[in-house]
Amino acid sequence: MASSTWVSDVDPESDFSLTNIPFGIATTSDNEAPRAVTAIGSHVLDLKGLLDQPDAGDVFPYLKDHGNVFDSTTLNKFAELGRDIHRQVRNTIQDLLSVDTKHPGFLKDNAELREKALVPRTKVKMHLPMHIGDYTDFYAGYHHAFGVGSMWRGPANALQPNYTHLPVGYHGRASSIVVSGHPIKRPAGQIIIDPAAEPKQPTVRPSQKLDIELELGCFIARGNAMGTPIDVNKADDHIFGYVLLNDWSARDIQNWEYVPLGPFNGKNFASTISPWVITPDALEPFRSKGIELEGRPELQGYLKEARAENVFDVRCEIDLTTPEGDTTTISRVSTKNLLWSFPQMLAHHTLGGCPMRSGDLLASGTISGTKPSEHGSLLEMSEGGKKDVLLAGMDARKFLKDGDTVTLRASCGESGKRVGFGECAGRIFSAVSR
Amino acid sequence: MASSTWVSDVDPESDFSLTNIPFGIATTSDNEAPRAVTAIGSHVLDLKGLLDQPDAGDVFPYLKDHGNVFDSTTLNKFAELGRDIHRQVRNTIQDLLSVDTKHPGFLKDNAELREKALVPRTKVKMHLPMHIGDYTDFYAGYHHAFGVGSMWRGPANALQPNYTHLPVGYHGRASSIVVSGHPIKRPAGQIIIDPAAEPKQPTVRPSQKLDIELELGCFIARGNAMGTPIDVNKADDHIFGYVLLNDWSARDIQNWEYVPLGPFNGKNFASTISPWVITPDALEPFRSKGIELEGRPELQGYLKEARAENVFDVRCEIDLTTPEGDTTTISRVSTKNLLWSFPQMLAHHTLGGCPMRSGDLLASGTISGTKPSEHGSLLEMSEGGKKDVLLAGMDARKFLKDGDTVTLRASCGESGKRVGFGECAGRIFSAVSR
Repeated sequence: MASSTWVSDVDPESDFSLTNIPFGIATTSDNEAPRAVTAIGSHVLDLKGLLDQPDAGDVFPYLKDHGNVFDSTTLNKFAELGRDIHRQVRNTIQDLLSVDTKHPGFLKDNAELREKALVPRTKVKMHLPMHIGDYTDFYAGYHHAFGVGSMWRGPANALQPNYTHLPVGYHGRASSIVVSGHPIKRPAGQIIIDPAAEPKQPTVRPSQKLDIELELGCFIARGNAMGTPIDVNKADDHIFGYVLLNDWSARDIQNWEYVPLGPFNGKNFASTISPWVITPDALEPFRSKGIELEGRPELQGYLKEARAENVFDVRCEIDLTTPEGDTTTISRVSTKNLLWSFPQMLAHHTLGGCPMRSGDLLASGTISGTKPSEHGSLLEMSEGGKKDVLLAGMDARKFLKDGDTVTLRASCGESGKRVGFGECAGRIFSAVSR
Repeated sequence: MASSTWVSDVDPESDFSLTNIPFGIATTSDNEAPRAVTAIGSHVLDLKGLLDQPDAGDVFPYLKDHGNVFDSTTLNKFAELGRDIHRQVRNTIQDLLSVDTKHPGFLKDNAELREKALVPRTKVKMHLPMHIGDYTDFYAGYHHAFGVGSMWRGPANALQPNYTHLPVGYHGRASSIVVSGHPIKRPAGQIIIDPAAEPKQPTVRPSQKLDIELELGCFIARGNAMGTPIDVNKADDHIFGYVLLNDWSARDIQNWEYVPLGPFNGKNFASTISPWVITPDALEPFRSKGIELEGRPELQGYLKEARAENVFDVRCEIDLTTPEGDTTTISRVSTKNLLWSFPQMLAHHTLGGCPMRSGDLLASGTISGTKPSEHGSLLEMSEGGKKDVLLAGMDARKFLKDGDTVTLRASCGESGKRVGFGECAGRIFSAVSR
């Protein structure tokens, strides 16, 4: 990879260094057709525009059988081309953006194309990167699962016996996944106001315990045939890339509804993802071991990975901005705090033959560390709503208030070579009372 | 509606009388482009072919702004046109197929079109009728929920306190929904062989407790905007029609995995639906009250229906055919055995703002009656695997064997005016041992 880019104004602290090269879907005010783009510093590069060039075949020879794969409202077709193609495209883009590019005439010294294809990020609107078929949310953040399980069922029953044997997960709702920036309406639902009263009597009202969950999301590149499981050691071939995910959760709705079939309206009102799909190649240098549990039972064969460093060490943070505009970073935690890797989740999900499709989304479950400053949800930070989480501006929260904005961020790597996810943000607005 | 059809060989016992007029997607060997069709007796009528006629605009004037809406691989676009259009199309087809049609020259007396558009059902292949975005499985069959809950948690804890207050449901897997006739591979999964041993030690092997679940499925016509709930008394506008659904279930996999987030691999390997979408208009004469529970707590306002007869009385049966070819009807039960109606499920699902989309599928949950002959699953028939279910051919089952075929059927109405669902069938084949 070339060491520096000719693109001006690339801040060394930018998420989108030449090392990154993520993929997304954007529109601009002068071209409202959604199309594939990448990001470099404070600019977006129109990949559809590049492939429209008459000499694109010389620069992207490996794409010549695929038409303009970037002329699409989603990245699904590109994702389906497979890891080798994704890698080659990323390499080519890194070359085109390098000071010592092999193809200076194509973009670097082509003022007309540069002007057209390199757009300031402030002038583009980002969209959902993929058409999401099915969405599955796992529960692989051990510290979160233990912490929340302790609160709801006591430490002795915090984790079920299955937890260390298989990656517990549930099917989520795909239709309510929105891209960063989409406003989030506080959901109404059935809520038990007095948990001591018997028989239990629910009331319908807006959630008073609206929470966040910091998660890592993983998009599927290519699926498996129905009936054919994915081998844990070949799961990489099925992974397109990663996004941040905020699994907004209404704890009071969830608490009443979730037994025996799992979370439903407490979760399905909205989930927010960051718009940029970060490639596995960009994250490869940041591999890490996940959580190591003492006395953990031996894994079943289909979950045993050849690779010890099976997760990524990505630094995440959660910012809460009050309606008054004061921002506090309320958590900092690494994505290495997972008991199960995405290859293990994929192997388990498909063990009985369940088919994955391009664009399916798996999420890690809430990621929390071992320290109070590393919690991935307000439920944990506030110890179940008992303690104030202190904010800038002399403010405090147990759960979210109308007008609050939550922004997840994540990155790895050093200055000038950052691989960052961009923002995963959403602002809460009031539910209309019913 | 006209009283009789000119189409020959319509058996009075056929599911597809002139009263029915369901919608489906089919291909034929001489035309492999999937397209919309309806059924009459033992024939399929090619709706795309009808709309291709130069004078189709005179017969279907209300479709003239929508192109050939039947020239599509799914019914989603047609579903989105809304209930009024569905009703008009059904009325027009009933007219065209009637002896006293107002348009005799269009189809009845048009030998060329008749020859082309009216195809024996044996010569067509049926496909999934809709592109399914999200699939939600409810648990509205009270007798089933109580029976299975008693087995798993004892009668005192059979039902959670929330059960009578809200339609409990969970998000299912859309990618593994297949159409009737698709073979079903027995899933492998983590299974506890000795439930008494502590600590619990799972083994990976093919499910030994493969079961069926008889359910009614409901396809969404038009969705709701994210954040805007569907009114229970306006839910009809959002319903396209109904299918039978077999929610294949691996009880041994489910039993180990389902706490605390609900069923996952025990369900997501396959669900089968019948190919014909039966319209609400066809079922309207068969409305019934659902299950009435003594001492049931008052419903929340958003679940109160103006209509007392909020479910349908459709006679269902489950046939099990052994590998040797002996068929036994192992259950007969009505779909009126539901505590919650589909309008109530829709109102609850969207209460917090969750968006529905055209083609989303809701399922009722297993439908069982109060008698042993009315069970919707082998789990109930065999009392949790303890008792043999006796079959023709001196055979018996507790759960399904490789080579077994399960066929769900359902219909209502009297001879000559049957409104039937057709078959929802699947044959089990062996899992490859891992």
